[in-house]
Amino acid sequence: MVAISVNKNAHPFDKTRLDALLNRRFFYAPAFEIYGGVAGLYDYGPPGSALQANIIAEWRRHFIIEEHMLELDTTIMTPAPVFETSGHVARFADWMVKDTKTGDVLRADHLVKAVLEARLAGDKEARGLASQPVKEDDKKKKKKVKTTAVKLEDRVVAEYENILAQLDNYSGPELGQICRQYSITNPDTGNEVSEPQQFNLMFASSIGPTGQHPGYLRPETAQGHFLNFSRLLEFNNGRIPFASAHIGKSFRNEISPRAGLLRVREFTMAEIEHYVDPENKSHERFGEVRDVMLALLARTTQASGRTEVSHMSVGDAVAKSVVANETLGYFLARVQQFLLRIGIDPARLRFRQHMANEMAHYATDCWDAEIHNSTGWTECVGCADRAAYDLSVHSAKTGHSLVARQALKVPIVSEKLVPEFNKKNFGKTFGRDSSAIQQTVSGFSEEGLAKLHGELAQGSTIISANGKEFTLTSDHLSIERKTIKQSIREFTPNVIEPSFGLGRILYILLEHSFWCREQDVERGVLSLPPIIAPTKVLIVPLSAREEFDPLVREVSLKLRKAGVYSRVDDSNTSIGKRYARNDELGTPFGLTLDFASVQKRTMTLRERDTTGQLIGDIDGVISVVTDLVQGTIAWADACKTLPAYDGVQAVD
Amino acid sequence: MVAISVNKNAHPFDKTRLDALLNRRFFYAPAFEIYGGVAGLYDYGPPGSALQANIIAEWRRHFIIEEHMLELDTTIMTPAPVFETSGHVARFADWMVKDTKTGDVLRADHLVKAVLEARLAGDKEARGLASQPVKEDDKKKKKKVKTTAVKLEDRVVAEYENILAQLDNYSGPELGQICRQYSITNPDTGNEVSEPQQFNLMFASSIGPTGQHPGYLRPETAQGHFLNFSRLLEFNNGRIPFASAHIGKSFRNEISPRAGLLRVREFTMAEIEHYVDPENKSHERFGEVRDVMLALLARTTQASGRTEVSHMSVGDAVAKSVVANETLGYFLARVQQFLLRIGIDPARLRFRQHMANEMAHYATDCWDAEIHNSTGWTECVGCADRAAYDLSVHSAKTGHSLVARQALKVPIVSEKLVPEFNKKNFGKTFGRDSSAIQQTVSGFSEEGLAKLHGELAQGSTIISANGKEFTLTSDHLSIERKTIKQSIREFTPNVIEPSFGLGRILYILLEHSFWCREQDVERGVLSLPPIIAPTKVLIVPLSAREEFDPLVREVSLKLRKAGVYSRVDDSNTSIGKRYARNDELGTPFGLTLDFASVQKRTMTLRERDTTGQLIGDIDGVISVVTDLVQGTIAWADACKTLPAYDGVQAVD
Repeated sequence: MVAISVNKNAHPFDKTRLDALLNRRFFYAPAFEIYGGVAGLYDYGPPGSALQANIIAEWRRHFIIEEHMLELDTTIMTPAPVFETSGHVARFADWMVKDTKTGDVLRADHLVKAVLEARLAGDKEARGLASQPVKEDDKKKKKKVKTTAVKLEDRVVAEYENILAQLDNYSGPELGQICRQYSITNPDTGNEVSEPQQFNLMFASSIGPTGQHPGYLRPETAQGHFLNFSRLLEFNNGRIPFASAHIGKSFRNEISPRAGLLRVREFTMAEIEHYVDPENKSHERFGEVRDVMLALLARTTQASGRTEVSHMSVGDAVAKSVVANETLGYFLARVQQFLLRIGIDPARLRFRQHMANEMAHYATDCWDAEIHNSTGWTECVGCADRAAYDLSVHSAKTGHSLVARQALKVPIVSEKLVPEFNKKNFGKTFGRDSSAIQQTVSGFSEEGLAKLHGELAQGSTIISANGKEFTLTSDHLSIERKTIKQSIREFTPNVIEPSFGLGRILYILLEHSFWCREQDVERGVLSLPPIIAPTKVLIVPLSAREEFDPLVREVSLKLRKAGVYSRVDDSNTSIGKRYARNDELGTPFGLTLDFASVQKRTMTLRERDTTGQLIGDIDGVISVVTDLVQGTIAWADACKTLPAYDGVQAVD
Repeated sequence: MVAISVNKNAHPFDKTRLDALLNRRFFYAPAFEIYGGVAGLYDYGPPGSALQANIIAEWRRHFIIEEHMLELDTTIMTPAPVFETSGHVARFADWMVKDTKTGDVLRADHLVKAVLEARLAGDKEARGLASQPVKEDDKKKKKKVKTTAVKLEDRVVAEYENILAQLDNYSGPELGQICRQYSITNPDTGNEVSEPQQFNLMFASSIGPTGQHPGYLRPETAQGHFLNFSRLLEFNNGRIPFASAHIGKSFRNEISPRAGLLRVREFTMAEIEHYVDPENKSHERFGEVRDVMLALLARTTQASGRTEVSHMSVGDAVAKSVVANETLGYFLARVQQFLLRIGIDPARLRFRQHMANEMAHYATDCWDAEIHNSTGWTECVGCADRAAYDLSVHSAKTGHSLVARQALKVPIVSEKLVPEFNKKNFGKTFGRDSSAIQQTVSGFSEEGLAKLHGELAQGSTIISANGKEFTLTSDHLSIERKTIKQSIREFTPNVIEPSFGLGRILYILLEHSFWCREQDVERGVLSLPPIIAPTKVLIVPLSAREEFDPLVREVSLKLRKAGVYSRVDDSNTSIGKRYARNDELGTPFGLTLDFASVQKRTMTLRERDTTGQLIGDIDGVISVVTDLVQGTIAWADACKTLPAYDGVQAVD
C-alpha cells in the first residue's frame, strides 16, 4: 500500500530553515551580494524565476484570458508632470524620523510598532504569561526590539493596544506626538528621534541630455493605464465596462526595508483597472461568485480596536453593503480564487477594509487581501475603488477628454435658457472683443441668464470681458427658452483596481508550502502545487552511463509533447540525494530509470510529499504523470491505476 | 478552388500606411501622449503586448527550455560601484555636439551621417541619376536633412562614402575633425556645432533616504548574471559550460531618439551569458547547426569600404576562422533559426562583424545580427565574446573568487621555490609584525625567492613591511624547492553573450509582415505567423443575437481545450469589416457562425492572407484550425481536407 497523505505538521514552522533552503537552492538572494548587497533589492535565481513565471502565467490565464482583459506594457520612466497631476509628488510619502545623534533614518510607524509591541511582550513576561521565546538569530536579522520584562499599568496596556490597532490611521504629527508621549526612542541607540518628516518614495531621475526634464520611476503601473484610456476604449469599440491589465516592475524607495521579499524597493506587480459606469457598478458575472465565502475584517470592527473576521458570502456582503458594490465584490472573490489556486492556505487569508485615513489619496473604498505569515498579516493584493479620481485629474490637466459615451435608449429632454447672438451687430459694435463677450455670456448659469434676460427687457446690461466693460442691448442678443434633447450620455468612468504584489505572494506561498519530514527535520520539502512548481517532473537515471541516454531522451521527448516541463538530473550522487534536492526545489514528481527500465521498459513514479512510488510500463507512467501534472487526477487515483513499487526490481 | 497563395508585392512598402495601422490598432503608441509624449518612450497596447508576450514565449522555448539555460530575474536599480567596476560609468557614452547658438543637442555620428548622405543624394540628383523622391511627411517625421541638387567632385564623393562605411569606427575627436573639415553644421539651423563631448547613457538616481548611495538603471541585464556567477555555477553542480538567461527591461538615456521602436530609452532585452572554458570553446551541439547557411559581413570587408556579404555554412565559417570559435558560431546559427521562426525575412538578415574601435569596451569579438528595414540595416542581436573581462574585474574589485574548477585527469606536476617560516622565532623577534612580513615574503615571485635564498645563505636580508624594515636570518625562514602536484585546474570562464533587443525585432517583424491587398491598397494585412500572432482565431457570429450564444460558447471552449487562443468579435458591424480589422491585427484564421451553423452545425473557416474560405462540420473545422495554428499542416493541406465555401449557404 502506498501512502496517500503525510503528516506535514510534525515540526513547527522554522523560518531559519526555510531561509537557508531558499538561499541554498537559489530561489532568490540579495542583489549585488558580492558588493555587500543593498537593502530591499533581490535577484531571483532559476527556481525563483520559474516560480514567478508560472505564477504570472496562471495570473494571465485566470484574469486576462478568462475575462478578456486588454493587456498593456507601459513605460516605467515617467515625466514628473504625470505624477504631479496624480498627486504622487505631493503625497506618495512615508513619515521618517532621524536619530537625533547618529542621523540614522527610521520609518516612524514601524518604530512605534516595534517599541510598543516589545513593551507589551515585556509586560506579558513580567505577568508570567506565555510569551514566545525569541531566538537570538531572528532578533538580529529582523532588528527586533529587545524585550525587557517590565509590568505595565492596565491602563497603559489598553492604550498601547489601541494605538497598535489603529496604527495605519495616524498622520505624521500624530506619530510624533505618540513618540513624545510614550518616550519612544531609537531602540538601537536609546537616542531621541526627530519630529517625523515626509520622504517621497519615488526614485527620481532625469530624462534626456539637458537635465531639464525630471522623471520618476513609477511606483505603480496604474497611471500607464489611465493615460491610455481613450485608446483602450476605442480598442474595445467604445463599450464599457472593460478592464486593462499590466504585469510589470515598479519601484519604491523604501526608507529602511528589512523584511526580505515582503518590503522591497523594486518589485513585479500585476494590476487590473476595471472601468465601470459610476451609476451602475453591477457585474454581469457576479452570479458565478455569489456564494464564494470570504473572511472579512471591516473598517467598523477595526475602529473599535478588534481584529476578528466575519465569514460571509460575497452575495451577502454586497447585499448588506459591507462591500460597496458588485464589481468590487466580484474581484474580491476572483482574487481569492486565484490565491487558493496557486496554493495559499485558505485559513490564512482575510480581506481587511482600509480605515479612512489609511486609504491612498485617490481611493473611496479599499479592501486588502492579507495573507498570514511568520511576520503577521501582510497586504498582498489591494482592491481599491479609485472612483473617477485619476481620469478626472489627468483630463483636467491635459485638456484631453477621458470619458465614455452611452447611447440613451430614451433621450433626456430638458428645457433651458440659451443666449442667441446677433453676430452682425456684435461685430459692428465690439469688433475684436466680440468673441470674448460671447464666451462670457455662454458661461453664465441658468440663473445668470435669467437675470440678463430681465435686464435686456429693461433696456441694457453691462458685461465684463477682456478686462473691460461693455454695454449690451437686445440688438446684440436675446435670451430664449429652448428644448434640449440629449441622446448621448457622457460620463467619466469609475475605476475598480485589484493590484497584486507578486513578490509578496511568492514569498508567503513558499512559507505556506514549507515543511520538514517527520522522521528527519533536516529534510525540508516545498509542497508547491504542480501548476506553479518550477519543474513538474524530474527524470532520474540511475547514473550518467550512456546506456540510459536513449531512454532519457525518449521520456523527455514524450513529456515535452504532452506539454509537461521536465528536467534530467544525472549528477554524480545517489538517487536519494537527488530526490531530496528536488523535494527542496518543490518538484512534485520523479521518474527513475534503471537497468530494469532498459531491459523491460518499466519506470517508477515517485510522489514528492508522500515519497510513495508506483511502477508501470514507460508509456503508462507517462500518461499517469501527465494527468497528475494537469490536475485531472490526484495521487490517490494514480495509486489505484499503477501498482506500488516495493523498491526492489528484478533484473534478468 | 480556393487560392493557396496571394500576391503580396502588388504595392510597394509604405511606412506611412503601416505606422497609421499600428497607431490605429494600438500596437503601440508614444508614452504619455496626452502630456505631449517623451521622445524614445512607447507604450504597447493589447495587440503589441500580446505579440511581445508571444515572441518572449517562443524565445524562452527556443533558448531557455531547449538548451536548459538557467533563468534569472535580477535587479534594475544598481548601485554605482557595480558600473564603476564594469566600466560603464567611464565609457558607456555617446558623443554629442551642441548647436553653438541654440544649445540643441545632437548625436555626433548621426549628424555626420545625415548631412553626408543628404549631400550624396544631392550629388546624384545633380548628375541626373535616379534618386528616391522624399515625401514631405517622412522628411518631417524623421528630421531628414533637406536634399539640394549640388554636384560634388568625384574625389569628395569617394571620401564621403569612405567616411560613411567606417562611421562606427570614429572617436569623438575624429567626428569633430570631420565636422570641421567638411563644414558640417546643424541642418535645422545652419549654425556651427561644438566639439563632441561624451554623454553617459545611464539614467542616474539615488537609493535610500540619505541621498548618499548613487545608483543607475541598468543599461543591460548582463552584470546581474555575472554578479550571480558563483551561485549559478553551484546550482549547475559546478559543471561548465552552462548558460544563464534573463528577459527584462533595460534603460538608456539616448541623446535624441527619433527612430520609433528602433531607438528607445526603455526596452525589453533578452540576454544569454554562456560560460565556457577559455581553452575549449567547442560546443557539444555544434554538429546540429554545422550546415546552417549564414550571410556574413566580416570586419575585413568593411575595412576595405565594402558591404557585400559572404554566404557560407557555420561549419565553414568556423573552420576558416571567419567566426572565432564553435560556441560563437553555434549561437549565430541558433539566433538565425529563432529570427526566421518568428517570421523575419531570411533575405533581409545578415551578420556583421564589429570593427575594432566599434566594439564595446569588454568585447574581444562581436557579430551583430542585422535586419534590413525601411531605415536600412539595424542591429537586433549582438553576439559578443566578452572573454573573461567581466568576471575578472568584479572579482578583482570585490575579492570574491569568480572561477570554475576542473578536476584534472592527469595532475600537473611542477617544482617551485617555497618559503618555510619558523613561526616560533618569528613571534619572538617580530611580534605583531610577523604576519605582515610573512605575507610580503609569500607574495614574492620565483625570482625574488631565489634572490632571498641567496641572501639568507650569506647571513641575512632586509624586508619592508608595515612601513618598517626588518632583518631576517635563516633562524626565521628557509627557502626550499618543492614538488607541487596540482589536481584541480582553476580558471575564469569566458563569456559568449547573445543579446536581443526585442522591441527592434518586434517592429521590424511588423514591417516584414505588412502588405496591402492587390485590389485595394487601403486594405492592409499583417501576415504574422500563427505562433506569434496576438490572436490565433477570430470567432465571428453573424450578429450579437442570442441564438448564436450557445454555439459561440461551444466553439470558444473547444478551442481553449485544444490550446488555441481565440477571441469573439460580435461588434455591430459587417462580417467583412470585422475580418478587415482582424487582417490588420494579424489574426490568421476566422470562423463564421451563421444561421446554417445553428441549423446544420456547419462553420466556415477563413484564411487571412488568401481570404479563401472552407466549410465543414463544427468539430471537423476545429480540428483543422488547431492543426493550422500548431503548424502541423499548411493552408494547402487544409484545402484538400475541407471543401471550398462559395459564399452561399442554404438554410432550410
